[in-house]
Amino acid sequence: MAKVDSLLYHQKGGGLFRILGEKTAQMQEKYPGRPVVKLGVGDVTLPLAPAIVKALHDAVDDQSKKETFHGYIGNVPKLVEGIVARDYAARGVTISPKEIYVTDGSGGEIYNITDVFSGDCEVLVPDPAYPAYVDVNSMQGRKIHYVPCLEENGFIPQPPDYAVDIVYLCSPNNPTGSTMTKADMQKWVDYAKGCGAVIIMDSAYESFVTDPSLPKTIFEAEGARECAVEIRSFSKTAGFTGMRCSYIVIPSDVMIDADDGTKVSLRSMYVKKRGVRSCNPSYVIQMGAAAYYTDEGQAQCMENTRYYLNNGKVVRKALTDAGVPCIGGDNSPYIWMKCPGGMGSWEFLDLLMDRYGVVMTPGAGFGPSGEGFMRISCFGDADETKRGIESVVALCKEIEGKK
Amino acid sequence: MAKVDSLLYHQKGGGLFRILGEKTAQMQEKYPGRPVVKLGVGDVTLPLAPAIVKALHDAVDDQSKKETFHGYIGNVPKLVEGIVARDYAARGVTISPKEIYVTDGSGGEIYNITDVFSGDCEVLVPDPAYPAYVDVNSMQGRKIHYVPCLEENGFIPQPPDYAVDIVYLCSPNNPTGSTMTKADMQKWVDYAKGCGAVIIMDSAYESFVTDPSLPKTIFEAEGARECAVEIRSFSKTAGFTGMRCSYIVIPSDVMIDADDGTKVSLRSMYVKKRGVRSCNPSYVIQMGAAAYYTDEGQAQCMENTRYYLNNGKVVRKALTDAGVPCIGGDNSPYIWMKCPGGMGSWEFLDLLMDRYGVVMTPGAGFGPSGEGFMRISCFGDADETKRGIESVVALCKEIEGKK
Repeated sequence: MAKVDSLLYHQKGGGLFRILGEKTAQMQEKYPGRPVVKLGVGDVTLPLAPAIVKALHDAVDDQSKKETFHGYIGNVPKLVEGIVARDYAARGVTISPKEIYVTDGSGGEIYNITDVFSGDCEVLVPDPAYPAYVDVNSMQGRKIHYVPCLEENGFIPQPPDYAVDIVYLCSPNNPTGSTMTKADMQKWVDYAKGCGAVIIMDSAYESFVTDPSLPKTIFEAEGARECAVEIRSFSKTAGFTGMRCSYIVIPSDVMIDADDGTKVSLRSMYVKKRGVRSCNPSYVIQMGAAAYYTDEGQAQCMENTRYYLNNGKVVRKALTDAGVPCIGGDNSPYIWMKCPGGMGSWEFLDLLMDRYGVVMTPGAGFGPSGEGFMRISCFGDADETKRGIESVVALCKEIEGKK
Repeated sequence: MAKVDSLLYHQKGGGLFRILGEKTAQMQEKYPGRPVVKLGVGDVTLPLAPAIVKALHDAVDDQSKKETFHGYIGNVPKLVEGIVARDYAARGVTISPKEIYVTDGSGGEIYNITDVFSGDCEVLVPDPAYPAYVDVNSMQGRKIHYVPCLEENGFIPQPPDYAVDIVYLCSPNNPTGSTMTKADMQKWVDYAKGCGAVIIMDSAYESFVTDPSLPKTIFEAEGARECAVEIRSFSKTAGFTGMRCSYIVIPSDVMIDADDGTKVSLRSMYVKKRGVRSCNPSYVIQMGAAAYYTDEGQAQCMENTRYYLNNGKVVRKALTDAGVPCIGGDNSPYIWMKCPGGMGSWEFLDLLMDRYGVVMTPGAGFGPSGEGFMRISCFGDADETKRGIESVVALCKEIEGKK
C-alpha cells in the first residue's frame, strides 16, 4: 500500500499567503463592490520593460523557424554573460559562468539547493523570515534554530555563539526591509567559515539597494566564495513574477562533508541532483531575461524600481509623520511597521481589512518575532498605495488616540 | 559542518545522455568536418506551429501593458479547459480542472510526484525504462523491482505476482516504442487496486497514437481514477522541448496511507509540497500551450507529428527490408532495433559512430534488459534520418555477413 512521506504529512504551516487570499475573498464577499487595496503579497504591477518585450518577441520568432529553433537548452550564454558582467564583475566580484545555474524562480531554488544537504544538518533561520526557509527544512526533518531580528539589533540577524550547518540570510530583507552592510555580511562569512556552515543568501531584492555604501552581493565579503551560495531572481528586478526566471551562484570553492569523510564540492552534488530533477527555463524566457542586461534594459528596469522605491518613500513619510515606528522602503521594497497600541498583527489586519479594505501581511506570519508588526509591499500602483497608507495612518491614529 | 545527503552522494548513473554527449564531442574531434547524424536524444527539430507562435506573441504583448499584465499566476484557465476537453472529455474521460497541475516539464514532474511518497515504498519499474524512474527513487532510498520487457512479451510490461507501492508505466513506450492496449492498461489498474499501489503513467508520447483501437490515457481503463496519476508533456506533442510545459493529472479519488493509519488524498499531499517547492510555468508559455488546443493548433501540431511518424515509417521499412528485427515507430516516435550479430549496444554504438558518424541511444543505458538493442529517435530531420538509417543498414549487413 502506497504511503505518504511522514514529514510531509505532519508538516504544519506553509499557508501564510493562502490564508491572506482566503481572508481577502471573505472580505470581498462581505463588502461587495468596495475596492480592495493590495499592499500584502509582494507582486509587481508594472508591465515588462520595452527592451525585454522586444527580446521576447525576437525569441518567439526564433522558435518559429527551423534554422533558429531551439529544443532542449541549458543556460543561455547571453544571459549568463550578462549576469557575470553586470551583477558581479561590475562589483569587483569574479564569478565563472560555470558557477551559475539558471532556474525558474527563487522560491523553487530555495527548495532545490536545500535538499542536497543531509537531513541531520542543523539550520539557522532569522526570525522573522520568508516562510519557505522553515517549511523546506522541516519537510526534510532538520532541526531549526532561530536568531531574532528585533528593534534593538536594527532587525539585522547576528551570528550566534553555537555552530550550525546551514544559514539562511536575506538582504535587503523580506519581510523587515532592513539591509545588511558589508560588515554585517563579513561577520556572517567569518561565522560560517569558523563552523563549516554554508550560507544560502536570498538576494531577490538587491536591485533596490541604491545607497552606494551598501553591498549588493554576499560575494563582496572576503572568503564568501568558500562558504556561500546566492540566489537571485528577475521577479522583482525585471517584473518577472509571471515570467519565471532566477539563478543560483554556487562557487566551486564551497566544499561540504560526505559520510565517508571525503570533502565534496557542493556544486557537483547540486548538479547531480539537478540532472534528474529539473530543466532550464524556456529559451524564450531566458532571452527575455538576457535583455535586462543590455543598457536599455538596465535603464528601463531601474525606472520601474524607482517607481516602487517612490511608493516606499510615500509610505515611510506618511507613517513617520504620524509617529508610527517603521523601517525599510529606502533600499528595499518592503516596509516593516509596528502595529499601533500594542496590537497583534493578525488582529490589526482584521480591523484594517474590515474598516478600509486594505490588505497587508501580518508580521506574525513570518515567525514569532514578527508579532506586532506588519509588512507593507511597495509593489502596488502609486495612487492605490497612497490611498492605502492614508487609511492605515487614520486607523493607527484612532487606535493610539483611544489608549 | 555542512553534510551532503548520503543517498545523493552515493548515487550512481544518471548519465546516459551526458555520456552520449561526451562521445559525440570526442567523435567530432576525431573526425573534424564530418557531419553528425543525430538519432540519439529525443529532441524535436521542427519549429513551433504558427497558432502557437501567434499566441506567444499575443501573451508577450499582454505582459507589455499595465492593464493586461500578469504577475504570479496559477494554472491558466484557457489551458486547463483545453486539456479537460481535448485530452480527456473527447476520449470519454471525466477529469476536473482541479485535478490538473501545469508544470514545466515531465522529467521534473516525475521527481516531484515521486518525493511525496515515503522512502520505504517499494517501486516497480519496467526494464528497460527512461532512466529517471530509477534515479529519482534510488536518490530517495527506495527498493526497486524490475519487470523485464522482452521480445517474448512484445516488450509490454506484465504485472508481477508480488505487491509493490508505486508502479511506473510509459505508453507509447520510451525506449522500446511499444504501445499498451486498453486490456494491458486494465491489467495494471486491476493489479494496482489489488495491492494498493499508485501507478505513475508517463504519457509524454500519446499524440503519436494514431491507431484508433489503442487508448491515449490510462483513465480509459476502469477504476484508474482510484489508483493512477498521469504525466503529459507538450515537449513532443507541440515541439516544446525548448519551451517547457507539461501537466500532471491527480484524481481526487487516489488515497494513500499516512503513518497514523489515516487515508489521505495523494492530491492534497502533492499540493502541500508543491506550495513550497514550485511555481507554475510562465503566463506566456502557458498561453502558448493553450493554443495547441485550438482547431488550428491541433491540426498544425498533428502535421508535425505526422512528419516524425513518417521518419518512423522510413526507418522501420529500411530495417525490416534488411532483416533487422525492430518494433515501434508506428504509434510511437521511437524504434527499438536489435543489434546485429549479437553485439552489445555500447559496442555497436561505438562502431556506428566511428564508421558513419551516426548517433543512436544504446539500449543498455535504459536497463539490463535493453542490452543488445538500440533506440532510434524519429524526431530528426527527414533527409538526415534517411541518410542515417542507410548507414545503420549498411553496418548491420556487413556485421551479419561476417558471421
